[in-house]
Amino acid sequence: MLEQYASTRNVQFILHEVFQISKLTNYDRYQDYDKAAFDMMVDAAKQLSDNHLYPTVREMDKKKAYYDSESGEVKVHPGLLEAIKAMAEGGWIGAYDDYEVNGQQAPFLLLSMANYLMYAANGNAAAYPFLTQGAAGLIRAFGSEALNEYYIPKMYSGEWQGTMALTEPQAGSSLTDITSSASPTDEGYYQIKGQKIYISGGDYEGIENVVHLTLAKVDGAPAGTKGISLFVVPKYREENGKFVSNDVTTAGIYGKMGQKNYVAAHLMFGEQDDCRGWIVGEEHSGLKYMFRMMNEARIATGLLSTGVASAAYYASLKYANERPQGRHPSNKDASAPPVLIIEHADVRRMLLQQKAIMEGSLSLLAQCSYYADLEQVETGEARDNAHLMLELLTPVAKSFPAEFGTQAVSAGLQVLGGAGYTDDFPLEQYYRDIRINSIYEGTTTIHGMDLLGRKMLMQNGKAVRLFSKEIQKVIMQAMELPALKPYAESLSKSAMAMQETAMHLMQLAMKEKPEVFLSDATLFLEFFSLITVSWQWLKQAIVAQAALDASPSEADARFYRSKLAAFKYFFEYELPKTRGLKTRLMSSNRVTLDTAPADLV
Amino acid sequence: MLEQYASTRNVQFILHEVFQISKLTNYDRYQDYDKAAFDMMVDAAKQLSDNHLYPTVREMDKKKAYYDSESGEVKVHPGLLEAIKAMAEGGWIGAYDDYEVNGQQAPFLLLSMANYLMYAANGNAAAYPFLTQGAAGLIRAFGSEALNEYYIPKMYSGEWQGTMALTEPQAGSSLTDITSSASPTDEGYYQIKGQKIYISGGDYEGIENVVHLTLAKVDGAPAGTKGISLFVVPKYREENGKFVSNDVTTAGIYGKMGQKNYVAAHLMFGEQDDCRGWIVGEEHSGLKYMFRMMNEARIATGLLSTGVASAAYYASLKYANERPQGRHPSNKDASAPPVLIIEHADVRRMLLQQKAIMEGSLSLLAQCSYYADLEQVETGEARDNAHLMLELLTPVAKSFPAEFGTQAVSAGLQVLGGAGYTDDFPLEQYYRDIRINSIYEGTTTIHGMDLLGRKMLMQNGKAVRLFSKEIQKVIMQAMELPALKPYAESLSKSAMAMQETAMHLMQLAMKEKPEVFLSDATLFLEFFSLITVSWQWLKQAIVAQAALDASPSEADARFYRSKLAAFKYFFEYELPKTRGLKTRLMSSNRVTLDTAPADLV
Repeated sequence: MLEQYASTRNVQFILHEVFQISKLTNYDRYQDYDKAAFDMMVDAAKQLSDNHLYPTVREMDKKKAYYDSESGEVKVHPGLLEAIKAMAEGGWIGAYDDYEVNGQQAPFLLLSMANYLMYAANGNAAAYPFLTQGAAGLIRAFGSEALNEYYIPKMYSGEWQGTMALTEPQAGSSLTDITSSASPTDEGYYQIKGQKIYISGGDYEGIENVVHLTLAKVDGAPAGTKGISLFVVPKYREENGKFVSNDVTTAGIYGKMGQKNYVAAHLMFGEQDDCRGWIVGEEHSGLKYMFRMMNEARIATGLLSTGVASAAYYASLKYANERPQGRHPSNKDASAPPVLIIEHADVRRMLLQQKAIMEGSLSLLAQCSYYADLEQVETGEARDNAHLMLELLTPVAKSFPAEFGTQAVSAGLQVLGGAGYTDDFPLEQYYRDIRINSIYEGTTTIHGMDLLGRKMLMQNGKAVRLFSKEIQKVIMQAMELPALKPYAESLSKSAMAMQETAMHLMQLAMKEKPEVFLSDATLFLEFFSLITVSWQWLKQAIVAQAALDASPSEADARFYRSKLAAFKYFFEYELPKTRGLKTRLMSSNRVTLDTAPADLV
Repeated sequence: MLEQYASTRNVQFILHEVFQISKLTNYDRYQDYDKAAFDMMVDAAKQLSDNHLYPTVREMDKKKAYYDSESGEVKVHPGLLEAIKAMAEGGWIGAYDDYEVNGQQAPFLLLSMANYLMYAANGNAAAYPFLTQGAAGLIRAFGSEALNEYYIPKMYSGEWQGTMALTEPQAGSSLTDITSSASPTDEGYYQIKGQKIYISGGDYEGIENVVHLTLAKVDGAPAGTKGISLFVVPKYREENGKFVSNDVTTAGIYGKMGQKNYVAAHLMFGEQDDCRGWIVGEEHSGLKYMFRMMNEARIATGLLSTGVASAAYYASLKYANERPQGRHPSNKDASAPPVLIIEHADVRRMLLQQKAIMEGSLSLLAQCSYYADLEQVETGEARDNAHLMLELLTPVAKSFPAEFGTQAVSAGLQVLGGAGYTDDFPLEQYYRDIRINSIYEGTTTIHGMDLLGRKMLMQNGKAVRLFSKEIQKVIMQAMELPALKPYAESLSKSAMAMQETAMHLMQLAMKEKPEVFLSDATLFLEFFSLITVSWQWLKQAIVAQAALDASPSEADARFYRSKLAAFKYFFEYELPKTRGLKTRLMSSNRVTLDTAPADLV
């Protein structure tokens, strides 16, 4: 049965009303598009999701992928290959790329919204082609012509899966410590040897080939991240027109709490000393290249989180609209019929929480995608600014949907009460599925350090100044609308508090070793995220308020009122959390630093 | 392999140093106890947990209970019966009860700490006997002599399982709407007919009998909760010395996200019109009686949450002490060896978060249990006050460990990174297991309503005044210790802010319909909980600081430093959250009430 898992009306609102995507068609790259073309693509994404993704989302949880040690194969749900095929045939894997490689030169903004729909329908399945997209993008950007010609068509057609092979058992998040090795040969390839763990999409039955974008160190490379190179390492290589094993073997896959058909493999490269890798770009520059894919994957992780939170929201909204239970506190008549639970204020709070987090996240991801588009088509300062903003917002776009999305799904489960904990409803699956996103592509801690320790300091704080200017712009617009003025003032105050806090931390950075100012980077990330998403909500509210004032249809009016309700929720319930965060971040009590590891018992 | 899941040192700290349990031995009821006896019982609980509970905790998750439709039996993990037997043989089921019924007249304070150890070891298994204990307590308190004589020995021996059968499909949390019926007969019993869902421990293979403490309405009873009566309805009844079916059948059990061997059954009473129930106490007074068991079950739920959070804390602490990864931000030498992750400030923050929530919860539950003891042994005003305090704190003791405990376990999972999401480690199980506790025994929403709408108003606010006095007492003590003075001041301010907020809400209650002041009761509960747990932490800190000042052994010094670190964490990171909560609760923006249900799309 097809249930609502996303809203195309909201996608249209984001694309046309908030971000006015049609403005992008003024650029050469996107000139073939118009509103109708964009809408057609959204519809196509929705139909594909309805037909090929949503129908198997629950089954993919119940029949998890597993490693068959006898055949050495990774068995997956049969619907997976079909879903990947449908996405490939729809042209989604290479859609952002140039016409000359059979791409559609579609704006990232549009594609992100399409991805959101697919992730909402079935994050397990949709993740595979988007991973291939990211891996292909890396070859496209930095790979040789030969690599491009050989791999890109097979990857865009969905015949070959792409992966990113970074993590190693002994190194975890610390890429400095990877030990996979690459020995040059005279034949143009390198001999690869090492282990990689948690490799998403790393292996599965029925896929023709798997192309691992692999980090390794060339013999004699400098220590640390400066010595990392990037290689294309396929599962099968071609020799004399025949495909033979490239000595990449699967030791097993991880049993996971959720995303049970999104394989996380443990791979062994070169156990038989016969694993060949082809270098991407220059030696020792691999991490720099890999950041391109990592940044894309971070946005994708944000979209995946938002998709799961979206499916959870609509599932709990439906339940709240169907389930009668209890009465209003002022109704003491026990013989009166019970009301629908959506009548209860606290149930509406939990629904608004979900909607505000999910739609706030989506808007932020649209914002990032829009900057990615500007970076693609603009030049000079406009391009640099778009790049800086994207860099600054990426840690937020990755971690806010994950962290707050997990809370949102938990609220969705809670709306159902006991039923939410059972597998009669999808909430418990979404609760398990979404949790990984705070770990994927850098844990939240790492994004806190990235934001505070790197992004805030870029070009002497230029990114933050741009960010403040963007927020100011929206605040000034909102000040003109009487209904929004109090909210604009509230954001203005909170943004100032954030800057004050940032200043305090920067002063610490100058006076003390970096451990001190970075010790609560995770909390600063949360503070910064609340400001960022409030900005996105104020932006949406301006559009919704103006549209509502212009006597729209009843369906539209309801949509805009709903927007404004979620907006108000965010400002009333989420934004005030910055008060506690500021108190903590301004405190000179260094609890975590002062606690000796041995004193934790 | 036996891993640490709880700390008996901490239990001793709570029992002897914070609550000075030996003072209870001055009362007749507990006069046979002394420190050695208490310690022996703690050791016995720990040994039982080590030998019979912890070893199967992971297996009980992997091999879940299921309903075998062919035999109509509920199949459970074989270790379950053994665990129940061990707990029964240890005398734990009736331990709180009088000597004359083979009880041990043990203080609740002691038993709660023992329960915590068992829940930490294996919440799935330990839950069964404690449920029997609660059901038996209800018969003991309000049942006839005949019921007592017949049921209590079998229940305390663990041969018969007890349950609480409240929830019905159409009513959910709204007990007003239950429709299970009870028709009186001339034989002294009632004919019971109806359905009950989510009945924990409701049926399982190998148990001799199941005794359902069941809510139903006698024919012609008044509408609403005033018409509810309480019955003992066994699965098998005795006729002419033989056990025959009492027409209670199991329609199935729920598939759950966690607690996979703690059966939640769907039961049918009287499908063949042959289900007999024996009334407990008077007709139409059933809900009043049931509250006794519900209140006990709420404390038990708090202990279960705390137990799971405890096991998660020690599992993640162990990992953090063993896993090397990354370097300090100030160390730019990539060839330096990685540090253990416990060296990273943010990992310590997540560990302190867990410890502060878990040990703060445990102290609060000890506080409640201590009031239960005073209610048992005291007279006059002392008894009334203890009763009032217990009533006031019960919603907090139930919901704080559940809500914050869920966050704590999530932090524990996060400490492990990718490994935490896999089933190679127990964190993902604990993450799933603990989540039900925000729903069990009244959702968090219900406890918010209970606190703000009922408990705050009891006897014209007498309970809150007592509560404030207790907090003041601890604040005044802390003011005397220079190291704690700033924290005492901080709690004093936050407690005043809470009172100010409560006053504001009470004024709303007088001016407007109850929907208004109750609309954010869940947030008020959180506010009140943060104050309550800060009070418990300040209380612990006073003891720890004094002990540390008295030159203890190195092991003890470490324990006290660890206590003070967790205490400081709570005051620096959790208590400031009250600022945002106050902002919201004082706001006149009624987002949730003003949003029409139809406007949520």
